[in-house]
Amino acid sequence: MALIVMKFGGSSVANAERVMNVARIVTDSYAEGNDVVVVVSAQGDTTDDLIEKAREINPNANKRELDMLMTAGEQISISLLSMAIEKLGYKATSLLGWQAGFNTNSVHGSARIKKIDTSRIKQELAKKNIVVVAGFQGLNKYDDLTTLGRGGSDTSAVAIAAAMHADRCKIYTDVDGVYTADPRKVKRAIKLNEITYDEMLELATLGAQVLNNRSVEMAKKYNVVIEVLSSLERLPGTLVKESVKMEKMLVRGVTADKNVARISIIGVPNIPGIAFKIFGKLAAKNINVDIILQSVGRNDTKDITFTISSDKSNEALEVLKELDFLEGRPIECDDQNVAKVSVVGAGMETHPGVAAKMFEALFEADINIQMISTSEIKISVLIDKKDADAAVTAVHDAFMPEDN
Amino acid sequence: MALIVMKFGGSSVANAERVMNVARIVTDSYAEGNDVVVVVSAQGDTTDDLIEKAREINPNANKRELDMLMTAGEQISISLLSMAIEKLGYKATSLLGWQAGFNTNSVHGSARIKKIDTSRIKQELAKKNIVVVAGFQGLNKYDDLTTLGRGGSDTSAVAIAAAMHADRCKIYTDVDGVYTADPRKVKRAIKLNEITYDEMLELATLGAQVLNNRSVEMAKKYNVVIEVLSSLERLPGTLVKESVKMEKMLVRGVTADKNVARISIIGVPNIPGIAFKIFGKLAAKNINVDIILQSVGRNDTKDITFTISSDKSNEALEVLKELDFLEGRPIECDDQNVAKVSVVGAGMETHPGVAAKMFEALFEADINIQMISTSEIKISVLIDKKDADAAVTAVHDAFMPEDN
Repeated sequence: MALIVMKFGGSSVANAERVMNVARIVTDSYAEGNDVVVVVSAQGDTTDDLIEKAREINPNANKRELDMLMTAGEQISISLLSMAIEKLGYKATSLLGWQAGFNTNSVHGSARIKKIDTSRIKQELAKKNIVVVAGFQGLNKYDDLTTLGRGGSDTSAVAIAAAMHADRCKIYTDVDGVYTADPRKVKRAIKLNEITYDEMLELATLGAQVLNNRSVEMAKKYNVVIEVLSSLERLPGTLVKESVKMEKMLVRGVTADKNVARISIIGVPNIPGIAFKIFGKLAAKNINVDIILQSVGRNDTKDITFTISSDKSNEALEVLKELDFLEGRPIECDDQNVAKVSVVGAGMETHPGVAAKMFEALFEADINIQMISTSEIKISVLIDKKDADAAVTAVHDAFMPEDN
Repeated sequence: MALIVMKFGGSSVANAERVMNVARIVTDSYAEGNDVVVVVSAQGDTTDDLIEKAREINPNANKRELDMLMTAGEQISISLLSMAIEKLGYKATSLLGWQAGFNTNSVHGSARIKKIDTSRIKQELAKKNIVVVAGFQGLNKYDDLTTLGRGGSDTSAVAIAAAMHADRCKIYTDVDGVYTADPRKVKRAIKLNEITYDEMLELATLGAQVLNNRSVEMAKKYNVVIEVLSSLERLPGTLVKESVKMEKMLVRGVTADKNVARISIIGVPNIPGIAFKIFGKLAAKNINVDIILQSVGRNDTKDITFTISSDKSNEALEVLKELDFLEGRPIECDDQNVAKVSVVGAGMETHPGVAAKMFEALFEADINIQMISTSEIKISVLIDKKDADAAVTAVHDAFMPEDN
């Protein structure tokens, strides 16, 4: 008998029919002799509907009250899923985040899990119940409800799997696994059987949007094997784990991130500590800087160019304006015309030819590279946004074996 | 400085505009220097919408899961009201039933309050917060959410007022007080300034539908002064309290209950214990019998006639069918054509002419009386349902002073 943790997102439980579909997946696994803990998000658009209700009344509502409001969403979906499971003849108990033992810190809207007290879950499993847990939510030390932030239900599922040493954490989504590129855009994209945590982290950051990053970090830390699979088709998905069999491919995935802004500060004084001050201030505002390029400018000055997520560009410009040592220096911001294309693969650590091959593919597709950034398992280039899709296909097809 | 407990029902918080209206009532009272605890129900049709969601998935959902589902309704309304209060520039904290300290027994769907631990409410009041509490809900000893049953928010409000020795418990509804009769039907109906708990209890039972009965019982037990008033108009309401000034009126209210069924069992053996067996079985099924009439029949038998709420008539007939000593006896049930008209007033205890005056008024209106039942402060008659409205007007006008 194995312990399986499953997680279903909002679209998987969007209506009565989908809830019944999830109940069938869950009870099939239980009927095979497994202990099953299911984590669910709020139904379909519930979260957005609730946010809209709040906005109508108070657009600047405080975050404690927003958490109180939001957490009603999963409360509805866990009770409905339990009813669906019972309709199929199995026993189920729904548990809110706090009932399932989720203790978090007090950062409303993006709380961190501090501890999970799994005693209630274990007690319900011992009674042969299928346990349905509200994702995304917990309780702080003041007994106030908190939420883990967007995508938090993935984290809830992995956290339970880690705390209970589950045999498998199955994350059900509306895609059937992790692909080498977006299959809607790249014809030759193929589904991966396995991928490492580090590769998945790079892909998640790069906008592959399959798994929430915090959940992958937690899975890596506690060595939880995740399976990403579809709630609509009964097919094996992609395993995310520590190490994987080397396949023919050097590269695990190619992604495009169009949500990028490039900011340039021209003529910064060429004295030590300037870069530290700039990026320190940005970090203090939780603005993640991605690619950084520094070039020698005229008259003993330098130009600093960096990229950030485009939805942070206004905030970043505010921060830069407040830096008095930059006063008067021209700041350029382009959050409309750039995109970042990346290849990810643990194999490239030992294969130095990857970067060259990527650049060659882009050159042959007549695509200009504006900036370059590399990590041990990733190479990213900043290019014109209009070339992004063509770049992904060109790079992907250069790396993927012909016969796929 | 006084401590005021307020309660607003679902229609008072049905949309953003109404929520803002409630926030203004609440903050006006706070601005006058009061400590304010507000109890709210789920918005408008939320409860019915949630029940419909459940029904689609599992019409026989278990009550624990239904409670989990339902309680999301007040969670939404308390957070929205808190946001509205903050929008007006005041501090508010929303508390779920369990956070507000409501401990109940484990009867899901109609739990009883066992204890209220008011420490969190007091702590929030001490911080100068307006405290917004989810009505209708609590927590049992297994840490599972429970609900108090329909109308439970009234009970929540009175319970807090009792536990905290509040100076006033204001129940806001869509009527502006308690009337001597339904003002939509009886032209000369007048609003009462005051009414006793006992009179209110009789009126509530009789279908006046202003206050939930359990809340009045609790108010009587703990001597909580309730004020019933409108959330839409700023007018004084009706006070419900232990004793009231005698006004000109002997009678406090006249009501019609059209939700009545009359059941007759013809030719019951005239031996001791038969009535006990019949009504004992009905009581065991939670079927409340109202008026009972027993008459001597033919051949040493008797006929027993009684009234119950018409929505219980099928259930009652099932119970009677199972009684073997009734086998073969004809059972007649009329749940379509009868209504009960009642007059209520603490004054009638010392004024024996009330019954005679009521019967005279009905006689003069040419209305036939089928059954009669009296208590110390109430006289009820069973009549033809088509005469109900005319009977209420006739009886009401006979008792009310001419100049009103």
